Amino acid sequence: MDEFELIRRYFSKEAVKRADVALGVGDDAALLTVPSGNELAVTTDSLLPGVHFPADLAADAVGHRALAANLSDLAAMGAEPAWVLLALSLPAADETWLEAFSRGFFALAKQHRVALVGGNIARGPLNITITAQGFVPKGQALTRRGAKPNDLVFVTGHPGDAAAGLKLLQSGAADMQDACVRRFAYPEPRIEAGMALRGLATSCIDISDGLLADLGHILDASGAGATLLTAKLPLSKRLLQLHGMEVAQVLALTGGDDYELLFTAPPERQGEVEQRLKGLACPVACIGSMEAKPGLRCLEASGHGLKLTEPGYKHF
Amino acid sequence: MDEFELIRRYFSKEAVKRADVALGVGDDAALLTVPSGNELAVTTDSLLPGVHFPADLAADAVGHRALAANLSDLAAMGAEPAWVLLALSLPAADETWLEAFSRGFFALAKQHRVALVGGNIARGPLNITITAQGFVPKGQALTRRGAKPNDLVFVTGHPGDAAAGLKLLQSGAADMQDACVRRFAYPEPRIEAGMALRGLATSCIDISDGLLADLGHILDASGAGATLLTAKLPLSKRLLQLHGMEVAQVLALTGGDDYELLFTAPPERQGEVEQRLKGLACPVACIGSMEAKPGLRCLEASGHGLKLTEPGYKHF
Repeated sequence: MDEFELIRRYFSKEAVKRADVALGVGDDAALLTVPSGNELAVTTDSLLPGVHFPADLAADAVGHRALAANLSDLAAMGAEPAWVLLALSLPAADETWLEAFSRGFFALAKQHRVALVGGNIARGPLNITITAQGFVPKGQALTRRGAKPNDLVFVTGHPGDAAAGLKLLQSGAADMQDACVRRFAYPEPRIEAGMALRGLATSCIDISDGLLADLGHILDASGAGATLLTAKLPLSKRLLQLHGMEVAQVLALTGGDDYELLFTAPPERQGEVEQRLKGLACPVACIGSMEAKPGLRCLEASGHGLKLTEPGYKHF
Repeated sequence: MDEFELIRRYFSKEAVKRADVALGVGDDAALLTVPSGNELAVTTDSLLPGVHFPADLAADAVGHRALAANLSDLAAMGAEPAWVLLALSLPAADETWLEAFSRGFFALAKQHRVALVGGNIARGPLNITITAQGFVPKGQALTRRGAKPNDLVFVTGHPGDAAAGLKLLQSGAADMQDACVRRFAYPEPRIEAGMALRGLATSCIDISDGLLADLGHILDASGAGATLLTAKLPLSKRLLQLHGMEVAQVLALTGGDDYELLFTAPPERQGEVEQRLKGLACPVACIGSMEAKPGLRCLEASGHGLKLTEPGYKHF
């Protein structure tokens, strides 16, 4: 079977039809229409086995996760996802793997009404590179730049769960129904939350590298500092059960892979933030505040500073 | 050096500034504006060592070629390129390689006023995946679909040169100044030619898989057949010198990697086609014609049919 047949069989299903796709998969390029008054948000992310996920992770989870990682970047901009392109290199035309991968991919794509508009399949070491595109009304995008001293720092969901899930998967005895394993294998990009934060959050980023590392990006871009209160971290029951308080906090701060949103908003808008996200059944916690003093500090309940090492995953 | 530092050092140069980039490299996504009245053309393509180029190809050629392959897909749509994203996975942070790669990449990007607006670097087997985006006035894109019986079939440049260049590179004794080697290592995407063919060509594709294989895509999409006259193939002097007529024809028909445009136009517009492309110093040859009878036929000067095998590269 050649690559054209593989594309036809697994990737040309019109799972999602969109009126803004004038020409989809099957020509030299797709032809797309951005609704007027909107900017286009575009991101690309690669997932590699042994780096971004265990090499034996179920193929449907790989498909889900690769798409989720990209949609999460759009969520962090407050963008509404529309179109994705998939460049897949894989060592052999393993149809069982491809069927499951495309099933996981399209299930999430359907959920967010995202159309696959192009791609590429080549033979080579497994590499899944996705480019995701979405819309955001002009001037309303959330960026890393706007955090101001006194803004509060918020996080959605339960950071640390994905890192704990990865540890279970790496131990080889993971239950795929375990709450933490599911947070790693099938993360839910916070699309609706990101869109609800337009006009409210002063900065936003998704937690892919680790909460501290990603907050560091906000501090760098915004030219400010922050103090986090570790006692405020919204640790899940399952995370605490698996690891106890101390390790759970470290996983929440440095674990990465959560694809939750980390954002800032002025204190007077805290109620509005909480109400809007509650309406979406999206958990949110205030975990600290921005300061004029540069740098990032973590205070334990005792008031002692936490020593931080390894803020996030580094590739080289 | 971590991936952020690598990105800062090699990929954050603002080689090309564009007013339509509201936010470029460095946030969760780029924010871009498509000019009104235009559709967005989007394509993605991966290049892998040993599959798409010899593993020891000079890094600046790899950077040039990866971008050229993607821009060529935009050229085939008649689109004007604007933005690219680069997802790079590489085994180690080899700075000599990265410096040369980014030099080759940005030199071509500058030539076509293309801005790098996002990307990703990860550690893993070498894989270069680029997503390219461009504009085309609504309804004016060239696709594979519109070829009609009696339309003439045209090709730009000198097909077969890239395949001959690849053979020289694989022999280990290639002169990087050799005309055929340069066509493989530094292909020039036919951007201006594609834009000039708007409203003129009835179908268009770029030759990446091989002239016959790519013409086959036009036939499939247009629901028609074609006859090519091998004597009309615009074989270069260097190709003939290297391989003689018979092998040169086979390379031109099946070699691939040329990134030339293959297109159709009505016979009464042949003069206009030739005049427009002459104005761009883009060689063009009429090599056959479309027919109602399905299938693809090649006639030699003698009038005999040519037996065809292996129409193009297949990945699996």
